[in-house]
Amino acid sequence: MRQIFFATLATLAALATSAQQALWQSAPVTSPVIHGDNTVTFNVKAPDATIVEIVGDFPDADGKSTVATMSRDSLGVWSYTTPTPLTPELYCYNLRVNGLKVNDPANVHLLRDGSTVVNIFLIEDGRDGLYGVADMPHGSVSKVWHDSPELGIRRRMTVYTPPGYADTTSSFPVLYLLHGMGGDENAWEEHGRATQIFDNLIARGAMRPMVVVMPNGNAALEAAPGQGSDGLTVPRFDLPKTMEGSFEAAFPEIVDYVDSHYRTVAQADSRAIAGLSMGGFHAMHISKAYPGTFGYVGLFSAAVDPRNKPTWDVYDDIDARLKRQFDDGVQLYWIAIGSDDFLYKENEALRSRLDSLALPYTYRESSGGHSWQNWRIYLSEFLPLLFK
Amino acid sequence: MRQIFFATLATLAALATSAQQALWQSAPVTSPVIHGDNTVTFNVKAPDATIVEIVGDFPDADGKSTVATMSRDSLGVWSYTTPTPLTPELYCYNLRVNGLKVNDPANVHLLRDGSTVVNIFLIEDGRDGLYGVADMPHGSVSKVWHDSPELGIRRRMTVYTPPGYADTTSSFPVLYLLHGMGGDENAWEEHGRATQIFDNLIARGAMRPMVVVMPNGNAALEAAPGQGSDGLTVPRFDLPKTMEGSFEAAFPEIVDYVDSHYRTVAQADSRAIAGLSMGGFHAMHISKAYPGTFGYVGLFSAAVDPRNKPTWDVYDDIDARLKRQFDDGVQLYWIAIGSDDFLYKENEALRSRLDSLALPYTYRESSGGHSWQNWRIYLSEFLPLLFK
Repeated sequence: MRQIFFATLATLAALATSAQQALWQSAPVTSPVIHGDNTVTFNVKAPDATIVEIVGDFPDADGKSTVATMSRDSLGVWSYTTPTPLTPELYCYNLRVNGLKVNDPANVHLLRDGSTVVNIFLIEDGRDGLYGVADMPHGSVSKVWHDSPELGIRRRMTVYTPPGYADTTSSFPVLYLLHGMGGDENAWEEHGRATQIFDNLIARGAMRPMVVVMPNGNAALEAAPGQGSDGLTVPRFDLPKTMEGSFEAAFPEIVDYVDSHYRTVAQADSRAIAGLSMGGFHAMHISKAYPGTFGYVGLFSAAVDPRNKPTWDVYDDIDARLKRQFDDGVQLYWIAIGSDDFLYKENEALRSRLDSLALPYTYRESSGGHSWQNWRIYLSEFLPLLFK
Repeated sequence: MRQIFFATLATLAALATSAQQALWQSAPVTSPVIHGDNTVTFNVKAPDATIVEIVGDFPDADGKSTVATMSRDSLGVWSYTTPTPLTPELYCYNLRVNGLKVNDPANVHLLRDGSTVVNIFLIEDGRDGLYGVADMPHGSVSKVWHDSPELGIRRRMTVYTPPGYADTTSSFPVLYLLHGMGGDENAWEEHGRATQIFDNLIARGAMRPMVVVMPNGNAALEAAPGQGSDGLTVPRFDLPKTMEGSFEAAFPEIVDYVDSHYRTVAQADSRAIAGLSMGGFHAMHISKAYPGTFGYVGLFSAAVDPRNKPTWDVYDDIDARLKRQFDDGVQLYWIAIGSDDFLYKENEALRSRLDSLALPYTYRESSGGHSWQNWRIYLSEFLPLLFK
C-alpha cells in the first residue's frame, strides 16, 4: 500500500502543478542547512549569475555583519558557509544576485519589517530555547478589531491569551506591548518571537500567565500592510500620527476594550506597558499621561524625547507628570538600552532626570545597538519581573 | 513643526538602518503598479541581469498564463505591462532573473503554498469586492491549539469568529473549512482570502454570521511550517497521515473542542463541513463517517476516491454510508468542480453514484481547473446557502 500511496501523491502533485508549473516550483537545493556544530551553509542554484552575495546579521570571520561573495560549483550552485558556529539566535539574511537583492528561493520563512522582506532561520531555537516552539501548552493569538471613536477608524490589534485561558474563569493581568517605527500589530509576534517567548516562559514557570495586547502604534493606520481597507499597499515609513499625541490620546479606548472583552484584573498593579524605540516613547508618555493606570513600565531602546508639537499637552511638564505617575504608584520602571544604540544619550538623560527627581527605576545596559536581537532579550528579561 | 517632524523621522530612519543598511533596504522601484484601466506594470531594477522574466497566473496576449520576458530600459529597470486589463481577482507571480526564480523585491505581499512563495496583488479588491478589506465590521481570527489524544500531539487551528461575537451571548452555527494537500491551517485565510470573504458577505447580509474553523488536515503535523515544534522546516508534500483515515478519526475531537470552547449551536442543522481537493475528500468521508453531525456538505474540486488502505473502515461501504448519512439528514450536499479539473471524472462518478442512490445534491460546474481562483468563488457561493 505504501507504494500506491506515494504513487498517488506523486500523481496528484504532478497534476496539481502542471497548470502553473513554472510558478509553483520548489527550489532545487536546500537552504539554509544548519550543521551539527551550528555553522550554517546557504545554497542557491543560479548557473547564469556572475556574482551571488549573501547579506546577513550573523557574524563573518571578523565578527562583523556578513556581506560575503558565495562560491560557485561546477553545476552553478552558489554556496556560503559561516566561518564560525553561530550563537543560538534568530537571524535574518538576503541574497544579492548580480546586484539584485532577493530572498533565498529555497527558504520559505520570511519576515517583513517596514518595506523590506528578509529570510530568517533559527539556531537551536535561539537564546536558551525561548524563541522556538517546544512541545508544551500554547497560548492563543488573535487578530481583533475594535472601534476607535477617538481616531475615527476601526483598528486591528494582536491579543495573546495564555494557555488555559479558555478553560478557566480566572482573571489575568495584562501587558500592553508596543512596536517601533516601521512596525505594526504583527511586529512583536513575528520579529519579536513574542508568542514563543510567552509560551516558553509560562511553561517554565518563569512568568505569570497574562494577556498580552499588541496594538498598532501608527494612529493613522487601521492595520498592518495588506490587512486594512487601504489594500495591498507598499508600507510607508513616513506615516503621520506616530509621535504627536494621537496614539497616546486613543490609548484609553484600547484599555477599555481589553478590560471589557477579556477576563482582566483591571487595576494598575496588574497592568504593564512596554515598548521598543517609538513604542518605548509611547509607553513612557502614555504611562505618564494616565497616572495610576500602569504599575509596570518597560522602555526598550526608547525614543525618550518628544519630537513633535503634540495635539494636546501630553509632552508638557514632564517632571511634574513623572512625579505624579510615581506618586500614584509604579512597581517597576525598567529602562534597557544597548551601549551602541543611537538613542543611548537620550536614555542617559532620562536616567539623570529620574535621579534628580529621586524616582526609582531599574536600568539594564546590554551590548549592541538598536536591534531585534536586543529587544527579544529585553522582553525575555522584563516578563519575569511583572506582577510579582 | 512639520519640517522638524520629517527631519526627525529621516534621522531615525537613517540611524535605524545604518547598522544593517544592506539588509533593510527598500526596493528602488515600485512594483506592481496597477493602472486605472486595470492593466498592471511590474518593475525590477537589475542592471546587471541579462534576462528577466515574469511568470504569473494572469493572462497573456493569448489568454494563457503569463511567461514573458521583461524589457530593459537604459537605467537597467526591467518592466512588463499586461497586454490587457485584468479581471478583478487575486493574482500570483514570480520573477526569473537569469533563470533564477525570485520574489519581486519591491512587493512585500507574499503567500506560501507548500514549499513555494509567490507574490500577490489584488485587482479592484477581486470578485465583486469580496477579497478586499472594506471599511466594515471585522471578525476575529485566532490561532488556537487543542490537545489531540487520538493523534498524540497538540494541534493548531485557525478560528474565525464573526463581528459582534464578543459582544453578544448568542450561539452561532459552525462551518469546518478544510484545505488541500500542501496546505495547512493558514491556507484558507491566506490564499483563500476567507476572512475577507466572510467579513464582506456578512456585512452585505448575504451570509449568516457563523464561526468558521480551519484545522490542519495533515494529521502528522502539529501546525503550519514554522509554527510547530519541528522548527523552521522546509514544507513537505509527501506527508504521512493525510488520506488514510487518521484525520477523519481525530475529527470528533475538533468538533468537541469547538462546541465546548465557543458559543455554538451544537446540532447538525447548524453545522457544515467543506473542503477543497484533499479537504473535499476529508469533508466527504468525515461527514459520512459521522452521520447526523453535519447538515451541510461542500466538496470543492474534491478528491473523491479513497487512495490508501485506511487504518479503520472509514472508506468501506460508501453506498451504505452515504445512504445512512442522507437518512440522518442532509440539508445541502454541494459539489463544485471546474471543467478542466484533473479530478473532473472522479466527481462525475460521484454524481452518478448519488443519482443511482437517489440522493439529492446540488452541482456547480465552473470553467477552469484546480485553482484557488475557483476555490474562492466556490466558497463565496457556498456560504450564502448555509443555515437557511
